[in-house]
Amino acid sequence: MVKIGILGVGTVGESVAKILEENGDIIEARAGKKIVVKSGVVRDLSKKREVDIVLSDNPSDVVDDPEIDIVVELMGGVEEPYALVKRALENGKAVVTANKALLAYHRYELQEIAGDIPLMYEASTAGGIPVIGALRTGLSANHIESIQGIMNGTCNYMLTKMINEGAQYDEILKEAQDLGYAEADPTFDVGGFDASHKLLILASIAYGLDAKPEDILIEGIENITQTDVAFAKEFGYEIKLLGIAKKVQDENGESGVELRVHATMIPQESMIAKVDGVMNAVTVVGDRVGETMYYGPGAGGDATASAVIADIVDIVRGNQGPMLGYKKGLESGLRLLSKDEIVTQYYIRLEVDDQSGVLAAITSTLGEFGISIESMLQKPTHNEEIAKLLFTTHKTQESKMQDAIKALGKLDVVHGEIAMMRIEK
Amino acid sequence: MVKIGILGVGTVGESVAKILEENGDIIEARAGKKIVVKSGVVRDLSKKREVDIVLSDNPSDVVDDPEIDIVVELMGGVEEPYALVKRALENGKAVVTANKALLAYHRYELQEIAGDIPLMYEASTAGGIPVIGALRTGLSANHIESIQGIMNGTCNYMLTKMINEGAQYDEILKEAQDLGYAEADPTFDVGGFDASHKLLILASIAYGLDAKPEDILIEGIENITQTDVAFAKEFGYEIKLLGIAKKVQDENGESGVELRVHATMIPQESMIAKVDGVMNAVTVVGDRVGETMYYGPGAGGDATASAVIADIVDIVRGNQGPMLGYKKGLESGLRLLSKDEIVTQYYIRLEVDDQSGVLAAITSTLGEFGISIESMLQKPTHNEEIAKLLFTTHKTQESKMQDAIKALGKLDVVHGEIAMMRIEK
Repeated sequence: MVKIGILGVGTVGESVAKILEENGDIIEARAGKKIVVKSGVVRDLSKKREVDIVLSDNPSDVVDDPEIDIVVELMGGVEEPYALVKRALENGKAVVTANKALLAYHRYELQEIAGDIPLMYEASTAGGIPVIGALRTGLSANHIESIQGIMNGTCNYMLTKMINEGAQYDEILKEAQDLGYAEADPTFDVGGFDASHKLLILASIAYGLDAKPEDILIEGIENITQTDVAFAKEFGYEIKLLGIAKKVQDENGESGVELRVHATMIPQESMIAKVDGVMNAVTVVGDRVGETMYYGPGAGGDATASAVIADIVDIVRGNQGPMLGYKKGLESGLRLLSKDEIVTQYYIRLEVDDQSGVLAAITSTLGEFGISIESMLQKPTHNEEIAKLLFTTHKTQESKMQDAIKALGKLDVVHGEIAMMRIEK
Repeated sequence: MVKIGILGVGTVGESVAKILEENGDIIEARAGKKIVVKSGVVRDLSKKREVDIVLSDNPSDVVDDPEIDIVVELMGGVEEPYALVKRALENGKAVVTANKALLAYHRYELQEIAGDIPLMYEASTAGGIPVIGALRTGLSANHIESIQGIMNGTCNYMLTKMINEGAQYDEILKEAQDLGYAEADPTFDVGGFDASHKLLILASIAYGLDAKPEDILIEGIENITQTDVAFAKEFGYEIKLLGIAKKVQDENGESGVELRVHATMIPQESMIAKVDGVMNAVTVVGDRVGETMYYGPGAGGDATASAVIADIVDIVRGNQGPMLGYKKGLESGLRLLSKDEIVTQYYIRLEVDDQSGVLAAITSTLGEFGISIESMLQKPTHNEEIAKLLFTTHKTQESKMQDAIKALGKLDVVHGEIAMMRIEK
């Protein structure tokens, strides 16, 4: 019999306990041993729980209990779970965590501390989809060329609604909050931060890159309007919040990796563009296998618990794989490109005076930064002296585009904020 | 250092050797050890190979070589590779196979022989997509409710062309043969047999069901016409050759499993309906995680080799998971339903006299078998006395539908063959 202790018995923790009980027969058949929850730790002992397990409000009752074999960390936060996971590992216990923030900041220290003790985290990224396993094991023959992930269900739900129903951002956010898909303070989701944690985890497995959220480009979906949606439809794009990891050659021919999270226009015919609503999906391109995609629910108590239990079963079976997927240094010399070095195509929306010569001023300003236009659309506004100008550029460097946007903003014929979205083909 | 011997150095075998060489750095980093091909066995030593490895035409040089740690079986066929894999396992060697036919017939004997020795087969099903790993490990917390797989690229390529380009089956088959996507004798692919082997492998992991191809319903795509394609478009369906495994309650309330391969009408909005061309995809619904999907290339030397090497790396890392995903009997009492017991919706195409009373005769005949019509379309033919009648039924049992088709065929007003396709919603 294998005994589990759970740190944090909320929605996911309750699902873990419930599934281990209700699907106990099949889980035991697959693992070869019976798996039971011995105890759990919660902050508030007075709160009513849906499952009948022994609870304590002292984490030591789990991490220091010699009878517990595997500690499941579902607390959230960063530093407190880090200290507890560290102690559990030092006590020789295997650990399963669903905590993406913990891993976004401490995965390399934890790998070091864990050594040969299993520390697994399938549930940390894309919920119930076993994409960590796919990348860590299933694609191990490949140099990874790119990863594109829809890894935040809140954003994908909101974007799908904006595109399919034509509603404005604020209405949809309100609706998502009412449905419980978005938090009262939605910044962590709609600002791209949640997706960035997951991207950093995947990038470590793919490239062995140690980066923290502060090191990478993170933007959200807050500035998307129905004007952008209409342009995207017209030119054959979907708009998705993507976490992107991409191996590229820098200016000196050295290999580097772009890591970025932002709203992205992608061709409607790509598989990931077809992923709608709260669902998640991760596309991985390997140099030998080509494109593979993993699709499923990215959140929810039972779906996340499904991934937590998969890790528990794998540990019980005797899995000894390296935490981040490699036993020696991976692709030494591969560096994280700075935000400025990103090279991609851009979509720009701005308001201009509706008069002759404006287009010439815009294109000439772009030309100063070596940027050329790929496609353009001009639309009237309710003010007949002002037009909306929407265009996409050919590939250019982020730093040049940022400078060009500043320069455009200084033109007398340009009014208000200039909106920008990146394009991936 | 880990030494590999390859039985059958064709396209996939050459890719395995080439990738182990060219991606040796990253594979070693992930596995923790250097992996080299020591030797290979081929039928025809005089044939030129693209890779430089020691070759023999005597299988014993691989399966009995004490220096070889892992035998990779890529021969094709059933009985000869079975004998050799058995011998390799008895010699204590781990085995990786991409041979779906071998597993469709001998997976349970091989599991018994292997015992604690790793015998892995990620490449046998859906090529480069790590779906075996997902089902075997990533979804282990779940009772599997259903599996739907596009697992034959030839069929999916042909159906995509028929739907998108309006061409007839025979033209497309010719084109697929010219492109090398279909064999000179295409029966194994277009008849559904290839997909059935893969379905049986997945069904063993999901349900622990020991069945052989002869035990299940297998139909192909040979009888699909542009009339069917047009009907499908009109009513919001795509047509795919699916391998389907589905847990259902039989008439006595006992759980049983349907296993079947056939051309299927599925709703256009389902994710698997969006998988086009030679690509493969497998959708798995678990009782806790809900729907997940795995998408990628189902064939090709490098993609298949990617899966073979993933298994090798997993073995080198010390993976000791059970071959078919469970260590004890799985869901005892679950039985394979007979073909007759399948319950689904049906699409029927038939030619009838274009005169009054015909519809009444048809519906009354269907009524005798308790079958009712869901939707119907009547189309003229080049012969103005004959009309095409296309309809879908509500759910009914396969045996009743088969009897009803026979009865319809005996009506004076019905002419020629009656075509049938199953529908999954």
